[in-house]
Amino acid sequence: MKKLIICLELLFLTGMLSAQAPKFIRLLPPNTDRGISVMKALSLRSSTTDWDTAGLILQDLSDLAWSANGMNRRETGKRTAPSALNAQDIDLYILLKSGIYIYDAAEHLLNLVAEGDFRDLAAGSQPEAAQAPVICLMVSDISRFNAGEEDQRLEWAAIDAGTVSQNIALFCASEGFATRPRVTMDKGNLRKILKLKDSQYLILNNPVSYNKVTDN
Amino acid sequence: MKKLIICLELLFLTGMLSAQAPKFIRLLPPNTDRGISVMKALSLRSSTTDWDTAGLILQDLSDLAWSANGMNRRETGKRTAPSALNAQDIDLYILLKSGIYIYDAAEHLLNLVAEGDFRDLAAGSQPEAAQAPVICLMVSDISRFNAGEEDQRLEWAAIDAGTVSQNIALFCASEGFATRPRVTMDKGNLRKILKLKDSQYLILNNPVSYNKVTDN
Repeated sequence: MKKLIICLELLFLTGMLSAQAPKFIRLLPPNTDRGISVMKALSLRSSTTDWDTAGLILQDLSDLAWSANGMNRRETGKRTAPSALNAQDIDLYILLKSGIYIYDAAEHLLNLVAEGDFRDLAAGSQPEAAQAPVICLMVSDISRFNAGEEDQRLEWAAIDAGTVSQNIALFCASEGFATRPRVTMDKGNLRKILKLKDSQYLILNNPVSYNKVTDN
Repeated sequence: MKKLIICLELLFLTGMLSAQAPKFIRLLPPNTDRGISVMKALSLRSSTTDWDTAGLILQDLSDLAWSANGMNRRETGKRTAPSALNAQDIDLYILLKSGIYIYDAAEHLLNLVAEGDFRDLAAGSQPEAAQAPVICLMVSDISRFNAGEEDQRLEWAAIDAGTVSQNIALFCASEGFATRPRVTMDKGNLRKILKLKDSQYLILNNPVSYNKVTDN
């Protein structure tokens, strides 16, 4: 029965069961009992270019989003990733086969932004990255910083995206998943699809997949 | 006996035993059997402004440097933190009471750069940060990127510093240590003391201390 549920989740998330992408995906609470230690994960941390195509089950997708930039202190709304001036400038977009979602950390759910498969835009000039079932996209809204000139704000945005990306990398290392931080993407078309404001900058993306099992 | 060694290490590292800073500090191999899981560390990750003044024992200092940007794949020289184009642009400076050291990841040792206590320069306009026994300072040398215009290189440098900083944050969370990513510092005077080239940029620093035990 559990296997069936997982299988249905997988079909659902990869958009194979339904022609329409769901308007939102309610995520499961973080499972803090899983995975290996920080030190062991650091010893295994690496970047891959070899992606498995299977969709992530809902618990894995949920823990990926929470690890990246989830709320870890509900009383203050603070997050797993720090941000300059606690501006929480980074929005995490999740690209699935069915559509692009934005992560609502307070509600711990994904809200649909655009229906359809746009992973090729995040892959940019490296089309193999679009094979990953999930691409995490870090977008900073620098208007959320209440200080600093534009140059300074862009530096903070890049630092903050780097911290979110490394949360993803260490979550993946702790679970044996594949990922890689990438600046390559089709920013022009992604801006249009995501309807970004001028103050929003596409900084980084991390495709994520299960570890590909090879014959050799 | 072990306590005596730890105590001597502590006195040595904080510069209380010797008037002279050692020319290098040979670090201990990473202890990957310590600490809590990535998911648990993410649930506890936070930034502090309350620093304990006790020096770190050598194993903690060693694992801090290795976590931040150590070599985790000796065969390729790759690191715990990714970098754009694998340029390994980030140099990790470690400020102790006795002096400023640069981390040599290949040899896993700290080499003396400047004798003396310069933690106040890294603390900048927030002098309380100088109370931390260790300040990790992330400096990017953007001349190591073999592509990109200066604007792009500066963005990569900030992303790469963010990933190193988050490694520090998660190591600290896994051990119950205190840290905080900070862009505040006296860059002008640090540049002079560290004799930085024009292509080297001071991006971020993370003071690190044991968790302060308070009475309340």
